[in-house]
Amino acid sequence: MLEKWDLRMTDQVKALFYDVFGTLTDFRSSIAREAEAVLKPKGFALDWGAFADAWRGEYQPALEEVRAGRRAYCKLDILHRENLETVLQRFGVTGLGEDDKQTLSLGWHRLDAWPDVPEGLARLKKTFWLAPLSNGNISLMVDLARRNNFPWDAILGADIAQDFKPKPRVYLAAAAAFDLRPDECMLVAAHSNDLAAARAQDLHAAHLARPNEHGPGRGEIAPSVPVDYAVKSLVELAEKLGV
Amino acid sequence: MLEKWDLRMTDQVKALFYDVFGTLTDFRSSIAREAEAVLKPKGFALDWGAFADAWRGEYQPALEEVRAGRRAYCKLDILHRENLETVLQRFGVTGLGEDDKQTLSLGWHRLDAWPDVPEGLARLKKTFWLAPLSNGNISLMVDLARRNNFPWDAILGADIAQDFKPKPRVYLAAAAAFDLRPDECMLVAAHSNDLAAARAQDLHAAHLARPNEHGPGRGEIAPSVPVDYAVKSLVELAEKLGV
Repeated sequence: MLEKWDLRMTDQVKALFYDVFGTLTDFRSSIAREAEAVLKPKGFALDWGAFADAWRGEYQPALEEVRAGRRAYCKLDILHRENLETVLQRFGVTGLGEDDKQTLSLGWHRLDAWPDVPEGLARLKKTFWLAPLSNGNISLMVDLARRNNFPWDAILGADIAQDFKPKPRVYLAAAAAFDLRPDECMLVAAHSNDLAAARAQDLHAAHLARPNEHGPGRGEIAPSVPVDYAVKSLVELAEKLGV
Repeated sequence: MLEKWDLRMTDQVKALFYDVFGTLTDFRSSIAREAEAVLKPKGFALDWGAFADAWRGEYQPALEEVRAGRRAYCKLDILHRENLETVLQRFGVTGLGEDDKQTLSLGWHRLDAWPDVPEGLARLKKTFWLAPLSNGNISLMVDLARRNNFPWDAILGADIAQDFKPKPRVYLAAAAAFDLRPDECMLVAAHSNDLAAARAQDLHAAHLARPNEHGPGRGEIAPSVPVDYAVKSLVELAEKLGV
């Protein structure tokens, strides 16, 4: 793990971009809760955490179809809805109507933020432009922002790039939207592969550890790639950036 | 002037889109002030309002080059900077350095809102998703939002459509970004041609009178096309929408 403490960088970086699933939001607990809320009253008794894991497990393969050019870009909401069919079948959940499936699928719009996020974003907002750089579509990002008071300056990410991370164009489109050079931007993420892809396009990188992202003890506790900062909370990042 | 008072519409409309130059911001006074701030210390004594009018006068012809397909889409910042050359020459302003020209051109990022806007947007935000639907680029919209506390949910408009109003795709791209049908959206604007173009794509339309947009008594006091609402302030629109 490399960590660079470079005061000049703070002057140079004007925008902070954020991964959202896992980094800002605890999607596993939230999706487990959402699945239980819809399915338990119908008599299903599942391991709700395992259900959330399985649904998220279908995420990267679905994105890869688009990234590899085998499928035209489509919003993550569509992919979540499609993947839900796979996961319901795997868990033996049958007989659901389309309304319930929609409600379940839009559970991804009702994720809760990790506890350090509101204070961290509020402090960082004073000095930096803030935007999500997520594979989630704009409407999903707006719902999460309204639920959790994320103070975004704009919604960037997959929808404006029409492709998914870690494809280079997604990082470059975000910087371009703010009229910034990539090295005036920094990605904050809990995932080393995302940070490595951002740095390959000359963005700065901050690793935010989410050790329980995929359940207790199942998350990156430290970056496995070179980064500019490695922190345990968004408040710690604000402190390191002097804001 | 038609005015429709349809309570069901309020339930149906989920997003309010806003024209920004003229409708939310007093660009004429602001640009006059910005021009004076840069040029007066250098000994130039111009009619600053006329300078602002002339600069704005170059706006539609420049946009038309892109809309007509004679030029690839480029951000409004670029067009403002190009048009500045024309206007400086016309007013006999010579000898400016690039730094001063940049400062002048970015004066469009420092426009002030009309007085009713902060309260109006704050009230409307509770019920509706809000986004600018402007020909200004994303970074320009962010600077205006930070200066005037515009509480946007996302920045929509020309940059995400890669074209300029009143081309249909700009209105449709905004609705699509929010996953809404056009008739679930309403454009708020001080300009009848903008509202007519929005309605042609099935968006709702609210005319917000800015009778002094181009100087005292030079602005639309009422719409010249059918609209859903016609109001004198954003606060009045909030009241009519019952929020």
